[in-house]
Amino acid sequence: MVRDASRVETFSDGVFAVVLTVMAVELLQNGPARDPGKQLPDALAHAWPSYLAYVITFGIAGQIWLGHHNMWRYVVRVDQLLLVFNLLVLLFVATIPFTADLLSDNLRRSPAEQRLTAALYVGTVLGESLFFNLSWWWARRRHLLHPELDPRLARAVAWRLRLRPLLYLIAFAFVFVDPILSLLLYLLLVGLSLIRRPGDLPRFAAGASEEINGRGR
Amino acid sequence: MVRDASRVETFSDGVFAVVLTVMAVELLQNGPARDPGKQLPDALAHAWPSYLAYVITFGIAGQIWLGHHNMWRYVVRVDQLLLVFNLLVLLFVATIPFTADLLSDNLRRSPAEQRLTAALYVGTVLGESLFFNLSWWWARRRHLLHPELDPRLARAVAWRLRLRPLLYLIAFAFVFVDPILSLLLYLLLVGLSLIRRPGDLPRFAAGASEEINGRGR
Amino acid sequence: MVRDASRVETFSDGVFAVVLTVMAVELLQNGPARDPGKQLPDALAHAWPSYLAYVITFGIAGQIWLGHHNMWRYVVRVDQLLLVFNLLVLLFVATIPFTADLLSDNLRRSPAEQRLTAALYVGTVLGESLFFNLSWWWARRRHLLHPELDPRLARAVAWRLRLRPLLYLIAFAFVFVDPILSLLLYLLLVGLSLIRRPGDLPRFAAGASEEINGRGR
Amino acid sequence: MVRDASRVETFSDGVFAVVLTVMAVELLQNGPARDPGKQLPDALAHAWPSYLAYVITFGIAGQIWLGHHNMWRYVVRVDQLLLVFNLLVLLFVATIPFTADLLSDNLRRSPAEQRLTAALYVGTVLGESLFFNLSWWWARRRHLLHPELDPRLARAVAWRLRLRPLLYLIAFAFVFVDPILSLLLYLLLVGLSLIRRPGDLPRFAAGASEEINGRGR
Repeated sequence: MVRDASRVETFSDGVFAVVLTVMAVELLQNGPARDPGKQLPDALAHAWPSYLAYVITFGIAGQIWLGHHNMWRYVVRVDQLLLVFNLLVLLFVATIPFTADLLSDNLRRSPAEQRLTAALYVGTVLGESLFFNLSWWWARRRHLLHPELDPRLARAVAWRLRLRPLLYLIAFAFVFVDPILSLLLYLLLVGLSLIRRPGDLPRFAAGASEEINGRGR
Repeated sequence: MVRDASRVETFSDGVFAVVLTVMAVELLQNGPARDPGKQLPDALAHAWPSYLAYVITFGIAGQIWLGHHNMWRYVVRVDQLLLVFNLLVLLFVATIPFTADLLSDNLRRSPAEQRLTAALYVGTVLGESLFFNLSWWWARRRHLLHPELDPRLARAVAWRLRLRPLLYLIAFAFVFVDPILSLLLYLLLVGLSLIRRPGDLPRFAAGASEEINGRGR
Repeated sequence: MVRDASRVETFSDGVFAVVLTVMAVELLQNGPARDPGKQLPDALAHAWPSYLAYVITFGIAGQIWLGHHNMWRYVVRVDQLLLVFNLLVLLFVATIPFTADLLSDNLRRSPAEQRLTAALYVGTVLGESLFFNLSWWWARRRHLLHPELDPRLARAVAWRLRLRPLLYLIAFAFVFVDPILSLLLYLLLVGLSLIRRPGDLPRFAAGASEEINGRGR
Repeated sequence: MVRDASRVETFSDGVFAVVLTVMAVELLQNGPARDPGKQLPDALAHAWPSYLAYVITFGIAGQIWLGHHNMWRYVVRVDQLLLVFNLLVLLFVATIPFTADLLSDNLRRSPAEQRLTAALYVGTVLGESLFFNLSWWWARRRHLLHPELDPRLARAVAWRLRLRPLLYLIAFAFVFVDPILSLLLYLLLVGLSLIRRPGDLPRFAAGASEEINGRGR
């Protein structure tokens, strides 16, 4: 009966899985297969913004999934508002293919159009980040987290979550310098967050951790 | 072997996840990216009915998911008919993108077309609501719910479920006054149901609740 | 570590969920929203074969899911070949939207085209049914089922599974009389199988059943 | 709290499920239903490369799923890097529909185009295979596997995983002889790997296996 968090994960995973694969379908429909006039190698090369957008989006959505995974493993119970915050996170996650498609379509147009689409993309990620922060804040306040979770760790996670939108905003500021540079900066940010030391994966307080790891599965 | 309800949830979550993300794909395909003749800001602004429909649909489908989540956590066993009722709920949930797309395409046409598409949209939600009510009624009648679920709570849930289609019908009646007003009323109804106090999340009878929460997970 | 069957269910549920919702997306793309020349009521009425095909497909795929759910709750372990049989079931399930779309597109064409598309549709269902039968046969032969499953029940399930393709073939034979009649016969068959008495849901041997139901969840 | 691996499986299954069904949707959109000028039987026959590509892709993605299933049932804990390797496996899995579509579109064009698209397809599978190997290597090195997993078995799995990209490369080399032959060779390789004896499904060390199977579920 206490599988609540588990069902939230299943549902969210479904949304994440569709978002990741929808980008690949878009790739397919924007890709060279739909460009009959050109030679295949040219058509493939011509479609590079699609590939870039696919990789970046996979990186962003994958990173959000990692964060979601890391957070929800500490959630023991849910209440209505936590579910609503999670739905709002997913509302923004589900629009990533839309904004990413806009971005990749406008990557070779005027600077004004590049900035507008980059701003929309960043807005999506910021919205997601905002409600993600609210989820963690609410889960802590309402004692929905595992009772043996180390409070220092819960605080550290909260700080890391607050840092993320800031870094995204800085990367966004570079849109006014050069949109491609801004995108590459994103890729770098995502890369950095992915390769972080396995050691800093959130842990439980010593006792709880022993007990849990001892159970095997 | 008694994971029956858990599999029903996984399956339903898959349908919900696709429904939520399909709307975002539709957004992408109805959106400005497919409107080459226009300037980007105009094209983005022009597509506002798509955004409204996306948000409303996400709200409606998200709210249905919340209700589904709240109901199924009390279901301990399933039988053939409960599964069929659940499939029929999903049959209507899966058509939400279709009716929402119709709605958003006709939002700026004649009042007759607005009414027709709004009626279809409401019909979808009413159909879903009907079979949702049948699910709860059948699960109670067949003793498929958790044995320690407080009977007063089961009754309260049944009343709340019966109330929902009524509120939707009232919102629908406003289509004859003004379709946009009717849509906004929906949004308000969904919003109200989302922000309800966390305290009124269904609880078990005192003893059961203690036992369950004490287990941690 | 013995969650094997559970993961097979999650994966299959993902495929089922996408199949059910893909039909609704097709509805959307074949539907009146893409028919700008016509009046809305006419366009909606004109699209009736899409609705029929959607309902029938939802019925067929939903029924297959019910069967899949009923079978896999008895599976305790899996081996390579059982997984392959299950993948082949899904191979056919995943083509249902394709054959259903063909069917609905040709429902108002010549009898020859109606027969060809109906034959393809039935072929899909027969292929699925064949590998479903093989799954059950293999799971019984290799003792992958719950050890306390009543052998008489396992035999009864096997007989019911063998009956299904026969009934489908009979419904198919009516294509040569009238394709619409054949489709309606399918709908009837599906309906009959859905409304079967809850009492004939497979049960365990008396002792096992007691033990299992007593556990609550 | 130790459900980590279980959530990774749910998420990956979502991606696999969408990949398998997306191919069927592609079939639908490349298929005869969109070819109004032709007679139905001709249109159906004309679309044979789509069917071949669908079956091959289902085979490849299904085989990858089998491997993923076989590997992850031994994983007891996860860390950040294992999740990243898994995301990268999925990054390549999600592009299978794209490369398969390219392949099926170019199967009747010039040898140069056939080779290029076949190379892309093989590249996808090689990329997936590389990160799959890294996953297993990392899980072994970091002791994330079940503690009672027989070390000889873990080594045997590692060898089998290393063999797979080699076989794919050999099949790819045949593209320079004949692209169709190369595809058929793939199909054969996939077939061989599927029909391998159920007996060689990885087992636990004797004691652990007893304990696990004894639990029933």
